Amino acid sequence: MKPADAGRTPATLDNDRLLRALLREPVDRTPVWLMRQAGRYLPEYRAVREQAGDFMSLCRTPELACEVSLQPLRRFPLDAVILFSDILTIPDAMGLGLHFSAGEGPRFERPLRTAADINRLPLPDPEKELRYVMDAVRVIRRELAGSVPLIGFSGSPWTLATYMVEGGSTKEFSRVKRMLFGEPALLHRLLEILSDAVTHYLNAQVAAGAQALMIFDTWGGVLTPRDYLEFSLAYMQRIVEGLPRQADGRRVPVVLFTKNGGQWLESMAQTGCDALGVDWTTDLGDARARVGDRVALQGNMDPSVLYAGPQRIREEVATIFASFGAGSGHVFNLGHGIHQHVDPEKVAVFVDAVHEQSVALHT
Amino acid sequence: MKPADAGRTPATLDNDRLLRALLREPVDRTPVWLMRQAGRYLPEYRAVREQAGDFMSLCRTPELACEVSLQPLRRFPLDAVILFSDILTIPDAMGLGLHFSAGEGPRFERPLRTAADINRLPLPDPEKELRYVMDAVRVIRRELAGSVPLIGFSGSPWTLATYMVEGGSTKEFSRVKRMLFGEPALLHRLLEILSDAVTHYLNAQVAAGAQALMIFDTWGGVLTPRDYLEFSLAYMQRIVEGLPRQADGRRVPVVLFTKNGGQWLESMAQTGCDALGVDWTTDLGDARARVGDRVALQGNMDPSVLYAGPQRIREEVATIFASFGAGSGHVFNLGHGIHQHVDPEKVAVFVDAVHEQSVALHT
Repeated sequence: MKPADAGRTPATLDNDRLLRALLREPVDRTPVWLMRQAGRYLPEYRAVREQAGDFMSLCRTPELACEVSLQPLRRFPLDAVILFSDILTIPDAMGLGLHFSAGEGPRFERPLRTAADINRLPLPDPEKELRYVMDAVRVIRRELAGSVPLIGFSGSPWTLATYMVEGGSTKEFSRVKRMLFGEPALLHRLLEILSDAVTHYLNAQVAAGAQALMIFDTWGGVLTPRDYLEFSLAYMQRIVEGLPRQADGRRVPVVLFTKNGGQWLESMAQTGCDALGVDWTTDLGDARARVGDRVALQGNMDPSVLYAGPQRIREEVATIFASFGAGSGHVFNLGHGIHQHVDPEKVAVFVDAVHEQSVALHT
Repeated sequence: MKPADAGRTPATLDNDRLLRALLREPVDRTPVWLMRQAGRYLPEYRAVREQAGDFMSLCRTPELACEVSLQPLRRFPLDAVILFSDILTIPDAMGLGLHFSAGEGPRFERPLRTAADINRLPLPDPEKELRYVMDAVRVIRRELAGSVPLIGFSGSPWTLATYMVEGGSTKEFSRVKRMLFGEPALLHRLLEILSDAVTHYLNAQVAAGAQALMIFDTWGGVLTPRDYLEFSLAYMQRIVEGLPRQADGRRVPVVLFTKNGGQWLESMAQTGCDALGVDWTTDLGDARARVGDRVALQGNMDPSVLYAGPQRIREEVATIFASFGAGSGHVFNLGHGIHQHVDPEKVAVFVDAVHEQSVALHT
């Protein structure tokens, strides 16, 4: 395979429900995909992961990243595929030395400790240091052959900053909050650099073939409302403003998702994005009432419902549909990534339930 | 010392600001205390903890529990003392075998794995299996000698259930959510037992001398809005309804606190409780507008602000006061427990700032 030269399929999609729903255009059924749908709950994923060695080798090998991205589509009639990658590719490309140790989550060998560390951060060239991501996008887009759209993604600047300053996962966010409250100008400098990097990265993903974009703000929900606006949302808005809004003659919808951000949906809806990801702590009908027709909504089943039996899963899907109500503007999803111990058969039940139950909502 | 026979001080308090503010009665200054104010950030706490050996031995020795409860009051002009104990004393008294391993958080030797495990749970007698807690309450109340009120507390049934079913701390709540979605009747049975146990426990704390009560629902925020009402709030309401509302001729105010429960304050305010704890993800002025004059509010500074310099701490206190506005019904606190690496000098700055700035709000 020559991924970098891979031909692009035309904009025509066999199934464009995802793009239509994200833009609140009419659809025949509510589209559905699952956060982390390519992942450890699938035995075929675990096989490829073992073949690749470690997690980052899997991300760095476009053919393998493509293979795992497409695996869920072979099992389930999903309405979208999402690029298989990690939100921490950008800090890794900036030289922080990302590695994953078993059961410990991500760690950086060289976390940001001083102002000098931040001031010398390079801006990665997506087609050089992050070429492996762009190649993965190209291969996946080609292999999809116009079946369903391909979603590209990035972490939010604030979320990336938490990992870069803390050196990995954290419960208290002590280091990054010390910076926020003690050296806010330095944190703003870091967030500016990251906003530029994310903007370049997402532009390059669209150029390589991504047809929709999602920004994951996993840790925006640990901030006060004031700090969220200043240190997370402002930078996501800046990125949204710097994104290409058209590719192949179609609008490229952008989804913002702040985990535990249910209290701030109104502000998020004013950034110019097309849709908001909603976790399960917010009632989807309430969310719709609050954002009105400004944006579409994506979500929001508790991933743990997939531990229950088929009937309970169908009931929860029905409850969420009853909450959202009729009409377009809803992409069904989980409220967070699928858990690794879920039986894939339950995903089939979930996807079918969404498609079957939603027909009546779009007449 | 003979804690069980310790004399009770009369209801007269030198400083009853906390009780008055929780009942939205006029005060001269806004009262302040800090969640986990007796804790590892104090060198004198670490000394007693070392003397006690492990954490549970400290909880189980009333004289030592009293000593660490009072330590923060010797340093700072706080308006309340909270019983030093742990939310997991009840499951421990039910025979689950609580232990704390270094850096790992609480673990149960015998977590709940089957329906039989749940059905044979005994209801602890607060003056027998939990006598050490009641003795601590009596000693602390006596030693306070009417200076400031003593707050008793418990975990919420849902929060206790998560630890009892998972066996310890968890990120995904897989086991307890499997039960919630797959065997809801069994989970309800467990929550009923825990509600009874908590009700007895808090009644006994009041009988032993506690003058205000707080229920910590640390994990209610991981539920959907529907599941929160059914599996957490309903049981807290049941407890509130079973509490003594008078002791020593005064009302015993009850505070409910659901971490990440900012979206559900209206429902929480309708349980019959007197006040709501609010974490820093909710704007306190918005919270006040939503709950009206139904309950008082307690909170809500991000504990990480205490990493900042004195001026920044004072600014954050001012911001929170500006948000809440004038009048009674506010108990200043952090939005969660104080972090262990905070310099105690910063707590002094914080407490003084609350008292100084609040004078103008109560004229």
